[in-house]
Amino acid sequence: MNMGKVVGSVVATRKESSLDGLRFMLVRHVDHEGKESGGSVVAVDAVGAGPGELVLVATGSSARQTLATDKRPCDAVIMAIVDSWDVDGKEKYKK
Amino acid sequence: MNMGKVVGSVVATRKESSLDGLRFMLVRHVDHEGKESGGSVVAVDAVGAGPGELVLVATGSSARQTLATDKRPCDAVIMAIVDSWDVDGKEKYKK
Amino acid sequence: MNMGKVVGSVVATRKESSLDGLRFMLVRHVDHEGKESGGSVVAVDAVGAGPGELVLVATGSSARQTLATDKRPCDAVIMAIVDSWDVDGKEKYKK
Amino acid sequence: MNMGKVVGSVVATRKESSLDGLRFMLVRHVDHEGKESGGSVVAVDAVGAGPGELVLVATGSSARQTLATDKRPCDAVIMAIVDSWDVDGKEKYKK
Amino acid sequence: MNMGKVVGSVVATRKESSLDGLRFMLVRHVDHEGKESGGSVVAVDAVGAGPGELVLVATGSSARQTLATDKRPCDAVIMAIVDSWDVDGKEKYKK
Repeated sequence: MNMGKVVGSVVATRKESSLDGLRFMLVRHVDHEGKESGGSVVAVDAVGAGPGELVLVATGSSARQTLATDKRPCDAVIMAIVDSWDVDGKEKYKK
Repeated sequence: MNMGKVVGSVVATRKESSLDGLRFMLVRHVDHEGKESGGSVVAVDAVGAGPGELVLVATGSSARQTLATDKRPCDAVIMAIVDSWDVDGKEKYKK
Repeated sequence: MNMGKVVGSVVATRKESSLDGLRFMLVRHVDHEGKESGGSVVAVDAVGAGPGELVLVATGSSARQTLATDKRPCDAVIMAIVDSWDVDGKEKYKK
Repeated sequence: MNMGKVVGSVVATRKESSLDGLRFMLVRHVDHEGKESGGSVVAVDAVGAGPGELVLVATGSSARQTLATDKRPCDAVIMAIVDSWDVDGKEKYKK
Repeated sequence: MNMGKVVGSVVATRKESSLDGLRFMLVRHVDHEGKESGGSVVAVDAVGAGPGELVLVATGSSARQTLATDKRPCDAVIMAIVDSWDVDGKEKYKK
Protein backbone atom coordinates (compact mmCIF):
# COMPACT_ATOMS: atom_id res chain seq x y z
CA MET A 1 0.00 0.00 0.00
CA ASN A 2 1.00 3.60 -0.36
CA MET A 3 0.35 6.35 2.15
CA GLY A 4 -1.41 9.41 0.88
CA LYS A 5 -3.30 12.51 1.90
CA VAL A 6 -6.86 13.13 0.76
CA VAL A 7 -6.71 16.53 -0.96
CA GLY A 8 -9.95 16.60 -2.93
CA SER A 9 -12.62 14.72 -4.78
CA VAL A 10 -13.73 14.03 -8.34
CA VAL A 11 -17.33 14.17 -9.57
CA ALA A 12 -18.26 11.93 -12.49
CA THR A 13 -21.94 11.54 -13.33
CA ARG A 14 -21.45 9.49 -16.46
CA LYS A 15 -19.72 6.27 -15.57
CA GLU A 16 -19.93 2.48 -15.69
CA SER A 17 -23.18 1.82 -13.80
CA SER A 18 -21.59 -0.51 -11.23
CA LEU A 19 -19.76 2.55 -9.88
CA ASP A 20 -22.94 4.43 -8.91
CA GLY A 21 -22.81 5.74 -5.37
CA LEU A 22 -19.05 5.46 -4.92
CA ARG A 23 -16.96 8.46 -3.93
CA PHE A 24 -13.81 9.23 -5.92
CA MET A 25 -11.16 10.92 -3.80
CA LEU A 26 -8.02 12.64 -4.99
CA VAL A 27 -5.08 11.35 -2.95
CA ARG A 28 -1.56 12.74 -3.03
CA HIS A 29 1.28 10.37 -2.24
CA VAL A 30 3.06 10.95 1.06
CA ASP A 31 6.48 9.44 1.68
CA HIS A 32 7.69 7.79 4.90
CA GLU A 33 8.91 11.19 6.16
CA GLY A 34 5.45 12.64 5.70
CA LYS A 35 6.31 14.78 2.67
CA GLU A 36 3.86 15.04 -0.18
CA SER A 37 5.56 13.75 -3.29
CA GLY A 38 4.60 14.72 -6.78
CA GLY A 39 2.22 11.92 -7.67
CA SER A 40 -1.48 11.55 -7.05
CA VAL A 41 -4.16 8.95 -7.66
CA VAL A 42 -7.95 8.88 -7.77
CA ALA A 43 -9.17 6.24 -5.30
CA VAL A 44 -12.60 5.00 -4.27
CA ASP A 45 -13.27 5.61 -0.58
CA ALA A 46 -14.22 2.42 1.31
CA VAL A 47 -13.80 3.72 4.86
CA GLY A 48 -15.31 7.21 5.07
CA ALA A 49 -12.13 9.24 4.69
CA GLY A 50 -12.37 13.02 4.69
CA PRO A 51 -10.31 15.91 3.32
CA GLY A 52 -6.88 16.25 4.90
CA GLU A 53 -6.78 12.76 6.37
CA LEU A 54 -3.81 10.48 5.83
CA VAL A 55 -4.86 7.16 4.38
CA LEU A 56 -3.61 3.90 2.94
CA VAL A 57 -4.39 3.16 -0.69
CA ALA A 58 -4.38 -0.36 -2.16
CA THR A 59 -4.09 -0.68 -5.93
CA GLY A 60 -4.61 -3.26 -8.67
CA SER A 61 -6.92 -6.23 -8.16
CA SER A 62 -6.53 -5.78 -4.41
CA ALA A 63 -8.50 -2.56 -4.78
CA ARG A 64 -11.56 -4.70 -5.51
CA GLN A 65 -11.38 -6.69 -2.26
CA THR A 66 -13.75 -4.42 -0.33
CA LEU A 67 -17.54 -4.51 -0.08
CA ALA A 68 -17.70 -1.17 -1.91
CA THR A 69 -15.51 -2.11 -4.85
CA ASP A 70 -16.05 -5.84 -5.45
CA LYS A 71 -16.26 -6.66 -9.19
CA ARG A 72 -16.10 -2.98 -10.14
CA PRO A 73 -13.68 -1.24 -12.56
CA CYS A 74 -11.73 0.31 -9.70
CA ASP A 75 -7.94 0.01 -9.42
CA ALA A 76 -7.33 2.09 -6.29
CA VAL A 77 -9.17 2.08 -2.96
CA ILE A 78 -8.76 3.85 0.36
CA MET A 79 -8.95 0.88 2.75
CA ALA A 80 -7.61 2.43 5.96
CA ILE A 81 -7.24 5.77 7.71
CA VAL A 82 -3.82 6.30 9.29
CA ASP A 83 -3.73 7.10 13.02
CA SER A 84 0.04 7.27 13.32
CA TRP A 85 3.28 5.86 12.01
CA ASP A 86 6.84 5.63 13.18
CA VAL A 87 10.26 5.32 11.51
CA ASP A 88 13.32 4.03 13.35
CA GLY A 89 11.41 4.17 16.61
CA LYS A 90 10.41 7.82 16.24
CA GLU A 91 6.82 8.85 15.76
CA LYS A 92 6.59 10.67 12.44
CA TYR A 93 2.88 11.38 12.50
CA LYS A 94 0.00 11.25 14.95
CA LYS A 95 -3.52 12.21 14.01
CA MET B 1 -7.52 5.54 -11.28
CA ASN B 2 -5.70 8.20 -13.19
CA MET B 3 -7.22 11.29 -14.69
CA GLY B 4 -6.60 11.91 -18.35
CA LYS B 5 -7.70 13.83 -21.40
CA VAL B 6 -8.91 12.09 -24.52
CA VAL B 7 -6.64 13.43 -27.27
CA GLY B 8 -7.16 10.96 -30.08
CA SER B 9 -7.94 7.44 -31.16
CA VAL B 10 -6.18 4.39 -32.53
CA VAL B 11 -7.44 2.23 -35.39
CA ALA B 12 -6.45 -1.43 -35.40
CA THR B 13 -8.21 -3.74 -37.83
CA ARG B 14 -6.13 -6.79 -37.10
CA LYS B 15 -6.57 -7.75 -33.49
CA GLU B 16 -7.61 -10.49 -31.08
CA SER B 17 -11.19 -11.20 -32.19
CA SER B 18 -12.70 -10.59 -28.74
CA LEU B 19 -11.78 -6.92 -29.18
CA ASP B 20 -13.97 -6.40 -32.27
CA GLY B 21 -16.17 -3.36 -31.98
CA LEU B 22 -14.26 -1.69 -29.16
CA ARG B 23 -12.90 1.83 -29.49
CA PHE B 24 -9.28 2.50 -28.57
CA MET B 25 -8.76 6.03 -27.29
CA LEU B 26 -5.48 7.84 -26.76
CA VAL B 27 -5.52 9.40 -23.30
CA ARG B 28 -2.89 11.80 -21.94
CA HIS B 29 -2.35 11.84 -18.21
CA VAL B 30 -3.54 14.95 -16.39
CA ASP B 31 -2.28 15.74 -12.89
CA HIS B 32 -4.34 17.03 -9.96
CA GLU B 33 -3.62 20.61 -11.06
CA GLY B 34 -5.05 19.88 -14.51
CA LYS B 35 -1.73 19.91 -16.34
CA GLU B 36 -1.06 17.35 -19.03
CA SER B 37 1.95 15.35 -18.01
CA GLY B 38 4.20 13.50 -20.39
CA GLY B 39 2.64 10.07 -20.33
CA SER B 40 -0.20 8.62 -22.35
CA VAL B 41 -2.09 5.36 -22.54
CA VAL B 42 -4.37 3.63 -25.03
CA ALA B 43 -7.64 2.79 -23.27
CA VAL B 44 -10.85 1.11 -24.37
CA ASP B 45 -13.84 3.42 -24.07
CA ALA B 46 -16.66 1.96 -21.94
CA VAL B 47 -18.68 5.14 -21.43
CA GLY B 48 -18.86 7.01 -24.74
CA ALA B 49 -16.08 9.51 -24.12
CA GLY B 50 -15.24 12.00 -26.87
CA PRO B 51 -12.18 14.04 -27.89
CA GLY B 52 -11.15 16.67 -25.36
CA GLU B 53 -13.10 15.20 -22.46
CA LEU B 54 -11.46 14.57 -19.10
CA VAL B 55 -11.90 10.98 -17.99
CA LEU B 56 -10.92 8.42 -15.39
CA VAL B 57 -8.90 5.43 -16.55
CA ALA B 58 -8.72 2.15 -14.61
CA THR B 59 -5.85 -0.18 -15.38
CA GLY B 60 -4.81 -3.79 -14.83
CA SER B 61 -7.38 -6.50 -14.17
CA SER B 62 -9.80 -3.79 -13.04
CA ALA B 63 -9.91 -2.64 -16.67
CA ARG B 64 -11.82 -5.84 -17.46
CA GLN B 65 -14.64 -5.19 -14.95
CA THR B 66 -16.94 -3.49 -17.48
CA LEU B 67 -19.50 -4.99 -19.84
CA ALA B 68 -17.37 -3.87 -22.79
CA THR B 69 -14.08 -5.32 -21.62
CA ASP B 70 -14.96 -8.47 -19.63
CA LYS B 71 -12.54 -11.34 -20.39
CA ARG B 72 -10.77 -9.31 -23.08
CA PRO B 73 -7.03 -8.56 -23.43
CA CYS B 74 -7.52 -4.98 -22.30
CA ASP B 75 -5.45 -3.42 -19.49
CA ALA B 76 -6.85 0.13 -19.54
CA VAL B 77 -10.46 1.32 -19.71
CA ILE B 78 -12.21 4.68 -19.59
CA MET B 79 -14.86 3.98 -16.93
CA ALA B 80 -16.00 7.53 -16.10
CA ILE B 81 -16.20 11.01 -17.59
CA VAL B 82 -15.12 13.75 -15.18
CA ASP B 83 -17.60 16.57 -14.50
CA SER B 84 -15.46 18.44 -12.01
CA TRP B 85 -12.84 18.08 -9.34
CA ASP B 86 -11.56 20.11 -6.45
CA VAL B 87 -8.30 20.35 -4.50
CA ASP B 88 -8.10 21.86 -1.02
CA GLY B 89 -11.65 23.10 -1.35
CA LYS B 90 -11.05 24.94 -4.62
CA GLU B 91 -12.65 23.84 -7.85
CA LYS B 92 -9.85 23.01 -10.29
CA TYR B 93 -12.02 21.98 -13.22
CA LYS B 94 -15.64 22.13 -14.25
CA LYS B 95 -16.87 20.73 -17.54
CA MET C 1 -2.38 -0.55 -23.55
CA ASN C 2 0.86 0.91 -24.78
CA MET C 3 1.84 1.47 -28.37
CA GLY C 4 5.09 -0.01 -29.52
CA LYS C 5 7.17 -0.96 -32.52
CA VAL C 6 8.28 -4.53 -33.10
CA VAL C 7 12.07 -4.29 -33.38
CA GLY C 8 13.19 -7.87 -32.92
CA SER C 9 12.59 -11.25 -31.38
CA VAL C 10 13.89 -13.42 -28.58
CA VAL C 11 14.66 -17.14 -28.85
CA ALA C 12 14.32 -19.24 -25.70
CA THR C 13 14.42 -23.00 -26.05
CA ARG C 14 14.37 -23.79 -22.36
CA LYS C 15 11.19 -22.44 -20.86
CA GLU C 16 8.06 -23.32 -18.92
CA SER C 17 6.48 -25.98 -21.16
CA SER C 18 3.14 -24.16 -21.49
CA LEU C 19 4.99 -21.52 -23.53
CA ASP C 20 6.05 -23.93 -26.29
CA GLY C 21 5.28 -22.59 -29.73
CA LEU C 22 4.79 -18.98 -28.71
CA ARG C 23 6.79 -16.19 -30.32
CA PHE C 24 8.54 -13.65 -28.08
CA MET C 25 8.83 -10.26 -29.74
CA LEU C 26 10.95 -7.33 -28.64
CA VAL C 27 8.77 -4.21 -28.65
CA ARG C 28 10.02 -0.66 -28.12
CA HIS C 29 7.60 1.82 -26.61
CA VAL C 30 6.33 4.53 -28.94
CA ASP C 31 4.71 7.68 -27.54
CA HIS C 32 1.61 9.43 -28.87
CA GLU C 33 3.81 11.51 -31.19
CA GLY C 34 5.28 8.38 -32.71
CA LYS C 35 8.71 8.71 -31.11
CA GLU C 36 10.43 5.64 -29.77
CA SER C 37 11.02 6.15 -26.11
CA GLY C 38 13.69 4.42 -24.12
CA GLY C 39 11.81 1.46 -22.77
CA SER C 40 11.17 -1.94 -24.30
CA VAL C 41 9.27 -5.08 -23.39
CA VAL C 42 9.26 -8.70 -24.51
CA ALA C 43 5.71 -9.62 -25.54
CA VAL C 44 4.10 -12.78 -26.87
CA ASP C 45 2.62 -12.28 -30.32
CA ALA C 46 -1.09 -13.19 -30.52
CA VAL C 47 -1.89 -11.57 -33.87
CA GLY C 48 0.93 -12.33 -36.31
CA ALA C 49 2.87 -9.09 -35.97
CA GLY C 50 6.06 -8.66 -37.98
CA PRO C 51 9.24 -6.59 -37.65
CA GLY C 52 8.71 -2.84 -37.97
CA GLU C 53 4.97 -2.95 -37.33
CA LEU C 54 3.34 -0.70 -34.77
CA VAL C 55 1.30 -2.67 -32.28
CA LEU C 56 -0.68 -2.46 -29.07
CA VAL C 57 0.64 -4.35 -26.06
CA ALA C 58 -1.54 -5.36 -23.10
CA THR C 59 0.20 -6.20 -19.84
CA GLY C 60 -0.51 -7.90 -16.53
CA SER C 61 -3.29 -10.45 -16.19
CA SER C 62 -4.92 -8.94 -19.28
CA ALA C 63 -2.01 -10.36 -21.27
CA ARG C 64 -3.44 -13.83 -20.61
CA GLN C 65 -6.87 -13.09 -22.12
CA THR C 66 -5.97 -14.40 -25.61
CA LEU C 67 -6.20 -17.91 -27.02
CA ALA C 68 -2.40 -18.00 -27.28
CA THR C 69 -1.62 -16.90 -23.75
CA ASP C 70 -4.46 -18.25 -21.56
CA LYS C 71 -3.15 -19.64 -18.25
CA ARG C 72 0.47 -19.10 -19.30
CA PRO C 73 3.25 -17.21 -17.45
CA CYS C 74 3.05 -14.29 -19.86
CA ASP C 75 2.66 -10.70 -18.68
CA ALA C 76 2.74 -8.89 -22.05
CA VAL C 77 0.93 -9.70 -25.29
CA ILE C 78 0.64 -8.06 -28.69
CA MET C 79 -3.15 -8.08 -29.14
CA ALA C 80 -3.55 -5.64 -32.06
CA ILE C 81 -1.65 -4.22 -35.02
CA VAL C 82 -2.05 -0.45 -35.41
CA ASP C 83 -3.34 0.83 -38.76
CA SER C 84 -3.38 4.50 -37.84
CA TRP C 85 -3.82 6.93 -35.00
CA ASP C 86 -4.66 10.58 -34.65
CA VAL C 87 -4.00 13.27 -32.03
CA ASP C 88 -6.06 16.47 -31.83
CA GLY C 89 -7.69 15.62 -35.14
CA LYS C 90 -4.41 15.20 -37.02
CA GLU C 91 -3.29 11.86 -38.34
CA LYS C 92 0.01 11.01 -36.69
CA TYR C 93 0.56 7.64 -38.34
CA LYS C 94 -0.87 5.61 -41.16
CA LYS C 95 0.45 2.19 -42.07
CA MET D 1 9.78 -9.51 -5.29
CA ASN D 2 11.69 -6.55 -4.00
CA MET D 3 14.09 -6.53 -1.12
CA GLY D 4 13.46 -4.04 1.62
CA LYS D 5 14.28 -3.10 5.17
CA VAL D 6 11.59 -2.83 7.82
CA VAL D 7 11.96 0.71 9.18
CA GLY D 8 8.69 1.26 11.00
CA SER D 9 5.02 0.53 11.29
CA VAL D 10 1.69 2.19 10.58
CA VAL D 11 -1.31 2.19 12.94
CA ALA D 12 -4.76 2.40 11.39
CA THR D 13 -7.76 1.75 13.62
CA ARG D 14 -10.39 2.59 11.07
CA LYS D 15 -10.08 0.24 8.13
CA GLU D 16 -11.89 -2.34 6.00
CA SER D 17 -12.94 -4.91 8.61
CA SER D 18 -11.24 -7.84 6.84
CA LEU D 19 -7.92 -6.21 7.73
CA ASP D 20 -8.46 -6.39 11.51
CA GLY D 21 -5.49 -7.86 13.31
CA LEU D 22 -2.98 -7.39 10.50
CA ARG D 23 0.25 -5.48 11.03
CA PHE D 24 1.20 -2.76 8.54
CA MET D 25 4.95 -2.36 8.24
CA LEU D 26 6.85 0.46 6.57
CA VAL D 27 9.47 -1.05 4.27
CA ARG D 28 12.20 0.88 2.45
CA HIS D 29 13.48 -0.56 -0.80
CA VAL D 30 17.01 -1.94 -0.73
CA ASP D 31 18.91 -2.51 -3.97
CA HIS D 32 21.08 -5.52 -4.83
CA GLU D 33 24.10 -3.74 -3.32
CA GLY D 34 22.26 -3.32 -0.04
CA LYS D 35 21.70 0.42 -0.35
CA GLU D 36 18.40 1.90 0.72
CA SER D 37 16.86 3.58 -2.29
CA GLY D 38 14.35 6.38 -2.10
CA GLY D 39 11.13 4.43 -2.29
CA SER D 40 9.08 2.81 0.43
CA VAL D 41 5.92 0.74 0.69
CA VAL D 42 3.47 -0.21 3.42
CA ALA D 43 3.23 -4.01 3.53
CA VAL D 44 1.27 -6.46 5.65
CA ASP D 45 3.53 -8.73 7.66
CA ALA D 46 2.85 -12.44 7.07
CA VAL D 47 5.99 -13.86 8.64
CA GLY D 48 6.68 -12.02 11.90
CA ALA D 49 9.27 -9.54 10.63
CA GLY D 50 10.70 -7.01 13.05
CA PRO D 51 12.29 -3.56 12.82
CA GLY D 52 15.62 -3.52 10.99
CA GLU D 53 15.17 -6.87 9.29
CA LEU D 54 15.71 -7.30 5.58
CA VAL D 55 12.69 -8.86 3.92
CA LEU D 56 11.14 -9.79 0.61
CA VAL D 57 7.94 -8.03 -0.40
CA ALA D 58 5.49 -9.43 -2.96
CA THR D 59 3.04 -7.02 -4.55
CA GLY D 60 -0.17 -7.04 -6.55
CA SER D 61 -2.53 -10.02 -6.46
CA SER D 62 0.39 -12.17 -5.30
CA ALA D 63 0.27 -10.22 -2.04
CA ARG D 64 -3.01 -11.98 -1.30
CA GLN D 65 -1.58 -15.51 -1.58
CA THR D 66 -0.82 -15.89 2.13
CA LEU D 67 -3.02 -17.11 4.97
CA ALA D 68 -2.95 -13.63 6.49
CA THR D 69 -3.91 -11.69 3.38
CA ASP D 70 -6.23 -13.98 1.40
CA LYS D 71 -9.18 -12.06 -0.12
CA ARG D 72 -8.15 -8.86 1.66
CA PRO D 73 -7.52 -5.39 0.14
CA CYS D 74 -3.77 -5.74 0.51
CA ASP D 75 -1.37 -5.16 -2.39
CA ALA D 76 1.97 -5.71 -0.61
CA VAL D 77 3.02 -8.46 1.79
CA ILE D 78 6.21 -9.41 3.58
CA MET D 79 6.42 -13.11 2.69
CA ALA D 80 10.04 -13.89 3.64
CA ILE D 81 12.83 -12.68 5.91
CA VAL D 82 16.22 -12.52 4.19
CA ASP D 83 19.09 -14.48 5.76
CA SER D 84 21.70 -13.59 3.16
CA TRP D 85 22.25 -12.82 -0.48
CA ASP D 86 25.13 -12.86 -2.90
CA VAL D 87 26.00 -11.04 -6.11
CA ASP D 88 28.58 -12.39 -8.57
CA GLY D 89 29.62 -15.01 -6.06
CA LYS D 90 30.28 -12.52 -3.26
CA GLU D 91 28.18 -12.41 -0.14
CA LYS D 92 26.60 -8.97 0.08
CA TYR D 93 24.63 -9.50 3.27
CA LYS D 94 24.42 -11.99 6.08
CA LYS D 95 22.02 -11.62 8.95
CA MET E 1 8.32 -9.86 -19.87
CA ASN E 2 11.61 -8.22 -19.11
CA MET E 3 15.01 -9.55 -19.98
CA GLY E 4 17.49 -9.87 -17.19
CA LYS E 5 20.75 -11.43 -16.09
CA VAL E 6 20.95 -13.76 -13.12
CA VAL E 7 23.57 -12.16 -10.85
CA GLY E 8 22.97 -13.86 -7.54
CA SER E 9 20.59 -15.51 -5.16
CA VAL E 10 18.75 -14.77 -1.94
CA VAL E 11 18.45 -17.15 1.02
CA ALA E 12 15.37 -16.87 3.22
CA THR E 13 14.71 -19.60 5.74
CA ARG E 14 11.75 -17.98 7.40
CA LYS E 15 9.01 -17.50 4.85
CA GLU E 16 5.40 -18.28 3.99
CA SER E 17 5.39 -22.08 4.05
CA SER E 18 4.03 -22.46 0.51
CA LEU E 19 7.38 -21.08 -0.71
CA ASP E 20 9.45 -23.91 0.76
CA GLY E 21 11.87 -25.38 -1.73
CA LEU E 22 11.77 -22.49 -4.21
CA ARG E 23 14.93 -20.70 -5.28
CA PHE E 24 15.02 -16.90 -5.15
CA MET E 25 17.31 -15.44 -7.79
CA LEU E 26 18.58 -11.89 -8.05
CA VAL E 27 18.04 -10.68 -11.60
CA ARG E 28 19.35 -7.41 -13.04
CA HIS E 29 17.37 -5.85 -15.86
CA VAL E 30 19.01 -5.91 -19.28
CA ASP E 31 17.80 -3.60 -22.04
CA HIS E 32 17.33 -4.51 -25.70
CA GLU E 33 20.94 -3.54 -26.43
CA GLY E 34 22.16 -5.95 -23.78
CA LYS E 35 23.17 -3.33 -21.25
CA GLU E 36 22.46 -3.90 -17.59
CA SER E 37 20.25 -1.12 -16.38
CA GLY E 38 20.00 0.01 -12.80
CA GLY E 39 17.06 -2.02 -11.62
CA SER E 40 16.89 -5.53 -10.22
CA VAL E 41 14.23 -7.94 -9.03
CA VAL E 42 14.11 -11.08 -6.92
CA ALA E 43 12.43 -13.82 -8.98
CA VAL E 44 11.58 -17.45 -8.31
CA ASP E 45 13.36 -19.78 -10.70
CA ALA E 46 10.97 -22.10 -12.60
CA VAL E 47 13.37 -23.33 -15.28
CA GLY E 48 16.73 -24.10 -13.67
CA ALA E 49 18.54 -20.86 -14.50
CA GLY E 50 22.11 -20.43 -13.31
CA PRO E 51 24.39 -17.47 -12.51
CA GLY E 52 25.25 -15.33 -15.52
CA GLU E 53 22.44 -16.60 -17.71
CA LEU E 54 20.13 -14.21 -19.52
CA VAL E 55 16.50 -14.94 -18.74
CA LEU E 56 12.96 -13.73 -19.18
CA VAL E 57 11.06 -12.66 -16.08
CA ALA E 58 7.24 -12.52 -15.90
CA THR E 59 5.69 -10.42 -13.16
CA GLY E 60 2.36 -9.92 -11.42
CA SER E 61 -0.29 -12.62 -11.41
CA SER E 62 1.38 -14.13 -14.50
CA ALA E 63 4.29 -15.05 -12.22
CA ARG E 64 2.01 -17.62 -10.61
CA GLN E 65 1.21 -19.48 -13.86
CA THR E 66 3.98 -22.05 -13.48
CA LEU E 67 3.98 -25.39 -11.68
CA ALA E 68 6.50 -24.02 -9.19
CA THR E 69 4.66 -20.83 -8.30
CA ASP E 70 0.94 -21.65 -8.57
CA LYS E 71 -1.08 -20.07 -5.71
CA ARG E 72 2.09 -18.80 -4.02
CA PRO E 73 2.93 -15.24 -2.89
CA CYS E 74 5.35 -14.76 -5.77
CA ASP E 75 5.17 -11.77 -8.10
CA ALA E 76 8.19 -12.49 -10.35
CA VAL E 77 9.27 -15.73 -12.01
CA ILE E 78 12.03 -16.77 -14.38
CA MET E 79 10.00 -18.64 -17.01
CA ALA E 80 12.54 -18.88 -19.86
CA ILE E 81 16.29 -18.87 -20.50
CA VAL E 82 17.32 -16.70 -23.45
CA ASP E 83 19.32 -18.37 -26.23
CA SER E 84 19.57 -15.31 -28.46
CA TRP E 85 17.84 -12.16 -29.53
CA ASP E 86 18.01 -9.80 -32.46
CA VAL E 87 17.20 -6.14 -33.02
CA ASP E 88 16.60 -4.70 -36.51
CA GLY E 89 17.81 -7.93 -38.05
CA LYS E 90 21.12 -7.96 -36.19
CA GLU E 91 21.92 -10.55 -33.58
CA LYS E 92 22.53 -8.77 -30.29
CA TYR E 93 23.20 -11.81 -28.16
CA LYS E 94 23.88 -15.49 -28.61
CA LYS E 95 24.46 -17.82 -25.74
